Amino acid sequence: MQAPLINQLGVVRRTIDRANATARDQLGQFGSATIHEAMGRVGLMKPFMRPIYPGTRACGTAVTVLLQPGDNWMMHVAAEQIQPGDIVVAAVTAECTDGFFGDMLATSFKARGARGLVIDGGVRDVKDLTSMDFPVWSKAISSKGTIKATLGSVNIPVICAGALVNPGDVVIADDDGVVVVPAAIAQQVADAARKREDLETEKREKLAAGVLGLDMYQMREPLAKAGLKYID
Amino acid sequence: MQAPLINQLGVVRRTIDRANATARDQLGQFGSATIHEAMGRVGLMKPFMRPIYPGTRACGTAVTVLLQPGDNWMMHVAAEQIQPGDIVVAAVTAECTDGFFGDMLATSFKARGARGLVIDGGVRDVKDLTSMDFPVWSKAISSKGTIKATLGSVNIPVICAGALVNPGDVVIADDDGVVVVPAAIAQQVADAARKREDLETEKREKLAAGVLGLDMYQMREPLAKAGLKYID
Amino acid sequence: MQAPLINQLGVVRRTIDRANATARDQLGQFGSATIHEAMGRVGLMKPFMRPIYPGTRACGTAVTVLLQPGDNWMMHVAAEQIQPGDIVVAAVTAECTDGFFGDMLATSFKARGARGLVIDGGVRDVKDLTSMDFPVWSKAISSKGTIKATLGSVNIPVICAGALVNPGDVVIADDDGVVVVPAAIAQQVADAARKREDLETEKREKLAAGVLGLDMYQMREPLAKAGLKYID
Amino acid sequence: MQAPLINQLGVVRRTIDRANATARDQLGQFGSATIHEAMGRVGLMKPFMRPIYPGTRACGTAVTVLLQPGDNWMMHVAAEQIQPGDIVVAAVTAECTDGFFGDMLATSFKARGARGLVIDGGVRDVKDLTSMDFPVWSKAISSKGTIKATLGSVNIPVICAGALVNPGDVVIADDDGVVVVPAAIAQQVADAARKREDLETEKREKLAAGVLGLDMYQMREPLAKAGLKYID
Amino acid sequence: MQAPLINQLGVVRRTIDRANATARDQLGQFGSATIHEAMGRVGLMKPFMRPIYPGTRACGTAVTVLLQPGDNWMMHVAAEQIQPGDIVVAAVTAECTDGFFGDMLATSFKARGARGLVIDGGVRDVKDLTSMDFPVWSKAISSKGTIKATLGSVNIPVICAGALVNPGDVVIADDDGVVVVPAAIAQQVADAARKREDLETEKREKLAAGVLGLDMYQMREPLAKAGLKYID
Amino acid sequence: MQAPLINQLGVVRRTIDRANATARDQLGQFGSATIHEAMGRVGLMKPFMRPIYPGTRACGTAVTVLLQPGDNWMMHVAAEQIQPGDIVVAAVTAECTDGFFGDMLATSFKARGARGLVIDGGVRDVKDLTSMDFPVWSKAISSKGTIKATLGSVNIPVICAGALVNPGDVVIADDDGVVVVPAAIAQQVADAARKREDLETEKREKLAAGVLGLDMYQMREPLAKAGLKYID
Repeated sequence: MQAPLINQLGVVRRTIDRANATARDQLGQFGSATIHEAMGRVGLMKPFMRPIYPGTRACGTAVTVLLQPGDNWMMHVAAEQIQPGDIVVAAVTAECTDGFFGDMLATSFKARGARGLVIDGGVRDVKDLTSMDFPVWSKAISSKGTIKATLGSVNIPVICAGALVNPGDVVIADDDGVVVVPAAIAQQVADAARKREDLETEKREKLAAGVLGLDMYQMREPLAKAGLKYID
Repeated sequence: MQAPLINQLGVVRRTIDRANATARDQLGQFGSATIHEAMGRVGLMKPFMRPIYPGTRACGTAVTVLLQPGDNWMMHVAAEQIQPGDIVVAAVTAECTDGFFGDMLATSFKARGARGLVIDGGVRDVKDLTSMDFPVWSKAISSKGTIKATLGSVNIPVICAGALVNPGDVVIADDDGVVVVPAAIAQQVADAARKREDLETEKREKLAAGVLGLDMYQMREPLAKAGLKYID
Repeated sequence: MQAPLINQLGVVRRTIDRANATARDQLGQFGSATIHEAMGRVGLMKPFMRPIYPGTRACGTAVTVLLQPGDNWMMHVAAEQIQPGDIVVAAVTAECTDGFFGDMLATSFKARGARGLVIDGGVRDVKDLTSMDFPVWSKAISSKGTIKATLGSVNIPVICAGALVNPGDVVIADDDGVVVVPAAIAQQVADAARKREDLETEKREKLAAGVLGLDMYQMREPLAKAGLKYID
Repeated sequence: MQAPLINQLGVVRRTIDRANATARDQLGQFGSATIHEAMGRVGLMKPFMRPIYPGTRACGTAVTVLLQPGDNWMMHVAAEQIQPGDIVVAAVTAECTDGFFGDMLATSFKARGARGLVIDGGVRDVKDLTSMDFPVWSKAISSKGTIKATLGSVNIPVICAGALVNPGDVVIADDDGVVVVPAAIAQQVADAARKREDLETEKREKLAAGVLGLDMYQMREPLAKAGLKYID
Repeated sequence: MQAPLINQLGVVRRTIDRANATARDQLGQFGSATIHEAMGRVGLMKPFMRPIYPGTRACGTAVTVLLQPGDNWMMHVAAEQIQPGDIVVAAVTAECTDGFFGDMLATSFKARGARGLVIDGGVRDVKDLTSMDFPVWSKAISSKGTIKATLGSVNIPVICAGALVNPGDVVIADDDGVVVVPAAIAQQVADAARKREDLETEKREKLAAGVLGLDMYQMREPLAKAGLKYID
Repeated sequence: MQAPLINQLGVVRRTIDRANATARDQLGQFGSATIHEAMGRVGLMKPFMRPIYPGTRACGTAVTVLLQPGDNWMMHVAAEQIQPGDIVVAAVTAECTDGFFGDMLATSFKARGARGLVIDGGVRDVKDLTSMDFPVWSKAISSKGTIKATLGSVNIPVICAGALVNPGDVVIADDDGVVVVPAAIAQQVADAARKREDLETEKREKLAAGVLGLDMYQMREPLAKAGLKYID
């Protein structure tokens, strides 16, 4: 069978190429902002994706789900495909804020080893999810339940909150947002993130000591060239 | 006098039929999502209604208020109609994010026995309300004050955040949202919620033990019939 | 040189008239709602401006920054103009949710004595900013980084989230929102806020004791005159 | 059987009390703004409801439909209940912008005598609908198709775009928005609208001749009393 | 009396300094985009401000109005201050989509010589306004009526849709948006716009003949310097 | 060189595989809704993408552009890559409503043979574009100009308004929205669309004659099975 199209309906792929686990866990040490910079400023989901409770973070290999609006049937299909170290990424074929996910599914996902959920829709049972420390990034919170009547897909490429996610990609989510690293470049991005963070530590100390970015980054000349005028 | 129209201006109803207090307090033990399911998936306010601080919940019989944009005069009229066990539900005749409610009104409402406020508008003094543990669900937070110049109504049927609320209905609000239970079916819904919750406990244990929803809910056959294809 | 226009590009003003420090610090004792009322109900930013963590507050004299979308070069230029007791207020020439500010700039701003940031755009490194207790009010949180390529301005009048801010104005921000007090009337507004707060204390006690606002504010007669009907 | 709840699922009511046809057609001569005023400033849907082409208007007795997100099955059930002079009013149980309605359904609805559609969701085939002169008010336009898998209801009370609509109510829609008149007061509102419109004709002529509203409505004294200051 | 604050309530200024009529009418020959560029890329209102019918334009000296949400009393006060060649600019103290303006006020404004209305709120009677060819730029269209009970101001500085407007400033509005030119620089901006437009005519001809902007603007070298890579 | 990542910065691909011209022009005969259905309900951009004037349509092979917020430099780079029959599809690395495109670029694009523009940002000179009959689908209209300072890319895969677009894909846009057909399946989708449209003609005639969809699609039995209740 031909590879599934993006957002193609009615397909479950059982075998996916997960990113290397070491690279994945290295990426999990960095913030989403650092990784986005290290990857050349790409891979971010839209900023409307927010954690349902503050101070949490997650990093895993993506099991993708495509849902129809108002229907969470595929979530149960997805559960079977989860392996320890995965994070579930759910897209919806249309804008929908329904509560597609709650404490029952979280219990199941957790039992399968999932590290969290990223969903371009709504979730519910927020208090329970917080108690369970099962982190979720969503665009809405809603008590509204869903039905189980229409097919979506699992482990096909999906567009979630403006980002393409292929099954097996590394997804890193924290208070700042959600970033997707293609499996093939996971190690390369982890290395670049490490380098970037090392550089920042030194610079942070200088800034804390009162050195100006203007001087540390040698910006005064380019600013003058660009025509910046100082007046009193 | 004829029963007031929805959102009719200039009327205060002093005598309302509150839902049975026992049923109300039973409903208060369940989450908004459970109650919405138990009622047949109806009765929810729009998901833009959010608690002003996390982890709170409230359940009460509705005292309804209809406000004009930028004007909170009717809040004071409503205070007099509050009885212990009530929750105030405020609609606005037009979209308005002003801060219609703050610590002064909260002090008054609390003294009257109100259990919280649900308002399709804005509130202020969020820090004080949090300290007082007076829970509020609103669509905005705003320092913007309001005037006291135009009539609305108290204890008439109102549409608040997309839900019809009759005075005396039971309103349950938590981290997931706000649900309205008509007074006449409060006990019936409480019973259905209890049944639903009992069932979920057992299922949750199975899911925690690793049983898949696919098997527990016997979904494999209907999924195949619907045409789901597994590929490798 | 002529005074810069609102939002004029390419200018840094080094000498600004900061509001009196005593008046500023008196204003810092009141909530944004109280100050907005004391000023005659003007001066508020739009309610989409939210603190990145709850329970924080800040008050300072404004150092203003005008940014271009996707570019934070001027933030470094602004750092040099910060004096202890200042708060940075950043406007963007177009709607943009990018993360213009993170832990590196916060380290630099803090070293210069800044008390916080108000930005009509996005920020990142929210967890670090929370740990540093560097308060920020923004309209978005985003991992998305910015470049340093185009000129904006520093210390010119800007429109930030619907409010005009002149450099040196007092900006007070808390859980309820952000309010701007022109430097010239800082003391006058602080005095009015004090008076208002004194009055409220007494009223709050009455309300807590069960006195109705209807009676305390003598509203029954004007309500009747306006035509309010009570029915049973 | 008990009367259906608002937004109750799975019910079709075949016999409804339509507003008097004469009153309905009288109401059809007035704009939505005039009727809203004549009814005492109630009954409006939210202003996000817009006609799909300008300059159109419609007035009919409501056949109501409750849809699930992404599913238009009930539209076909509704078609059978349409009588000449009706307008279809469709609510969705959750926010959804899918294209629930297009030229096929419009052909069917038109053949049954429907005068238009009001839908708190999306529509498609806008060009065809415009050619057919079948007016639609919606909150979105979207090519996105829907499925036919889940039950909603027909001819039960629904909340559509913030307004309660009972089957049989008169719905008037034009460039300014959509207003709902309960069947029981249709004639009374039509009479009040006629009176209002007669008064406006005379006033319009005065204003066109340069008379100021300040004088025509005798506002100068109340403005002065309210404290308005004139300065030069 | 001291000059009114921005958005100060309760004041009407009768004497304002209107921009030179010749400069104003010269500005009226250019599009809002051209003028915004000629002014150094400042002065625009937010892009949510849209004309109520396409293909219209207006240019006038600003008579400003500050409204309270849900109240259009000040519109009548403003009418008296209108002189031929003016455009009315209405701000609201809070977000409000009510229909503050309709055919009655338009008749009055037109009789006074107003060239149009720019309002950070809603309008109604869109069909009549279109027939009258009275152009309006607004953020909403709504049948919702307003009351006449609370004071705002006329001819004070206001912030409208993110732009500061002083009475007497030139306001130019067309299909692209709304731009504000301070009265003091009206002639200077008109001259710069003329120069800009002359240059564009010549360039447009070249582009129409197939010359690339890359060559006409000599962009190839700076693009290469910035690091642009061509691949096959 | 490795194939560029989605949204990778700084790359221009000169050689792309355009969809077969015959298939493209066949697709151009169908509406976006029909094509979306024919493709299995995938490939749509978000419904916020709207034509800048009604009644227009376009179909072409995609030349993709990745822009930075506030910067349209890459539009000029893209112009050189346009061939007759292409449509330009522009994504922006962050939410930005600036006017990235106006009559000058339209003149250039038209001279190169472009059939239109689809942009997840803003455009300006709407009146001129309408006169030129150069169709544009955008999420905003804004006078706000952009600069030419930062690199994006041309002819790399981009995510535009929620849809992945590869250079050479067929893009069909009309009043209902924008749909993307991968080049490799263009003919197959065109055939399926033809088949679908043929079927609809016959059905439309039946519906026009008063046959109910309930009967034509044999829905009565499945509705009864699903539990639909008719009441009187």
